[in-house]
Amino acid sequence: MDLTTISLESPYLIYLGDCPDKHHAKTGAGIAHWRPEHCAGQMRLPACPIDIGLPEMTLQQAKKAGIRTVIVGVAPMGGRIPEHWIPQLAELAAAGFDIAAGMHGKLVDIPDLVAGANEGGGRLIDVRVPPAGIPVGDGRLRSGKRVLMVGTDCGVGKKYSALALHRELERRDIKTTFRATGQTGIMIAGEGIPIDSVVADFISGAAEVLSPDNDADHWDVIEGQGSLLNPSYSGVSLGLLHGSQPDAIVLCHDAERLEIDESGGHLPIPELDEVIHDALQMARRLRSQCFCAGVSVNTSSMNDFDRDIYLSKLQSELGLPCVDPIATGMSPIANFLLKYAL
Amino acid sequence: MDLTTISLESPYLIYLGDCPDKHHAKTGAGIAHWRPEHCAGQMRLPACPIDIGLPEMTLQQAKKAGIRTVIVGVAPMGGRIPEHWIPQLAELAAAGFDIAAGMHGKLVDIPDLVAGANEGGGRLIDVRVPPAGIPVGDGRLRSGKRVLMVGTDCGVGKKYSALALHRELERRDIKTTFRATGQTGIMIAGEGIPIDSVVADFISGAAEVLSPDNDADHWDVIEGQGSLLNPSYSGVSLGLLHGSQPDAIVLCHDAERLEIDESGGHLPIPELDEVIHDALQMARRLRSQCFCAGVSVNTSSMNDFDRDIYLSKLQSELGLPCVDPIATGMSPIANFLLKYAL
Repeated sequence: MDLTTISLESPYLIYLGDCPDKHHAKTGAGIAHWRPEHCAGQMRLPACPIDIGLPEMTLQQAKKAGIRTVIVGVAPMGGRIPEHWIPQLAELAAAGFDIAAGMHGKLVDIPDLVAGANEGGGRLIDVRVPPAGIPVGDGRLRSGKRVLMVGTDCGVGKKYSALALHRELERRDIKTTFRATGQTGIMIAGEGIPIDSVVADFISGAAEVLSPDNDADHWDVIEGQGSLLNPSYSGVSLGLLHGSQPDAIVLCHDAERLEIDESGGHLPIPELDEVIHDALQMARRLRSQCFCAGVSVNTSSMNDFDRDIYLSKLQSELGLPCVDPIATGMSPIANFLLKYAL
Repeated sequence: MDLTTISLESPYLIYLGDCPDKHHAKTGAGIAHWRPEHCAGQMRLPACPIDIGLPEMTLQQAKKAGIRTVIVGVAPMGGRIPEHWIPQLAELAAAGFDIAAGMHGKLVDIPDLVAGANEGGGRLIDVRVPPAGIPVGDGRLRSGKRVLMVGTDCGVGKKYSALALHRELERRDIKTTFRATGQTGIMIAGEGIPIDSVVADFISGAAEVLSPDNDADHWDVIEGQGSLLNPSYSGVSLGLLHGSQPDAIVLCHDAERLEIDESGGHLPIPELDEVIHDALQMARRLRSQCFCAGVSVNTSSMNDFDRDIYLSKLQSELGLPCVDPIATGMSPIANFLLKYAL
């Protein structure tokens, strides 16, 4: 991947500050869950009630452990680094570690951190800020294979599904790379492009850069963003779909989601076969052989009995593997993907 | 329209520098053609061979004529103001006129112009730079009626078609506003948002701001951008389609265009009924009554006889009015639009 993508160096120290609860520490916990081999430790303020299970480190221990990047693994209230975290982070920057965060409020706008980074010689990496030099997409067909997560809406499990499918392909010794399109995904993958922060004219170009030419038997598993059905973000989703030129899509859905988020009820989510049809129709304008390899549903609201009935019914309706990526796993979708890809 | 749109004050002085040919003066000529009532004069360097037919003005005459904005009406080679135009433009800025341009190279990055504007107190308006504060779209249905130009590709006459339809509606004393989404359109309309320069997450939000709630019998005629079929810009087009929530679309096409521009032949333009079907399918997810009011085709490559045959055949195939906006005019599309809008 070239210089137009964000790139983080491991090993990581996950910084948690005094994060008040698990929900706000999802980013750090996700990195530790999906990339334990990159996470050497965690650092917290004394009052922090959250523990993501990594070895506790001081600055001296972090130096000894060869930490390269301190990742702020918390989504704080207000979308910016709290004032009282800054002295510790500035000290880490002054020690030469890269500092990475994915908040709206940027690291490079905090003078004490800039001073620390200047002293230590490391980078301040705002994962929401797209790299410079992303080109306009050219629609040229690329070598290698690609599968893109497509959602019925935002926040229905596209990132989780992509990571789980990537892990399943790895388990089978298939050549595969997870391609991250959002800030948490980028921190997990260690590289990627925050596609929704790119200027509109460059959305598909960013997707093209993210997933370059590759070996004919290599699979890029691409994290989706937004949804073609969500009027707030559909442009991002279509640019990503065309720039990714996927061989296959996986539809991601949340069984509890009956209407587009925050639409106030006027945008019900259509039948899933219609959603698949829409996405394939758009995808096939660029890559005629694109097919749907399955449906990945968050069914965490259901008990095992209801989940079985729900997924079986969906599977017989659609004629596609339908799974919950946590409860039942991505194996049936991986089977279908590998069986039917040209 | 609120502060999140660009807005120019008339009367205009169109600045042509020493523009070498008509093609590069299209912007200035377009403003003079569509908004003669806003154009008080033109200013040129002595060597300029191009004349767009406005009264020639000196700085003194411009002051007397009450000029408010000097618009650089040229798309120069290299996308930036040539060095030897800057002294004259800086003098105009120092005289207090706003200076507006739509190039990649920004006015605000030219120190002599900034100094001039500081002295004169006017603005430097880079029409490609979107205003701050554009919100994320919310998909709320708005009052008033909207018709959006949708293209088979980029550069097929969407702006011209929108302006011609707007003029036709005005001629019939229908309440109507042309809504500009690109730099030339913004200079013609005097306001708008360069939708392809907005950050991806805000595309549909920009379209919502551009076309706010209005009287129930008011028609916004919205300039399109890109094409759902063009893999470089489809994200912009879908965000604009959803943010515009049109009651109707007009398909714009160039009869000579057989494949997507710069696709190297691997992306033929589908049959027009398929293109209409795709666009309506996406539009109706948000606004179920959306319909196609006709097809506006650039047939400038044909003689009258061939044009008649081409448009008649298309019309009988599609069951929709099919026109050339210059050769035959937009009246049949206006009739269809007004007859079938709910």
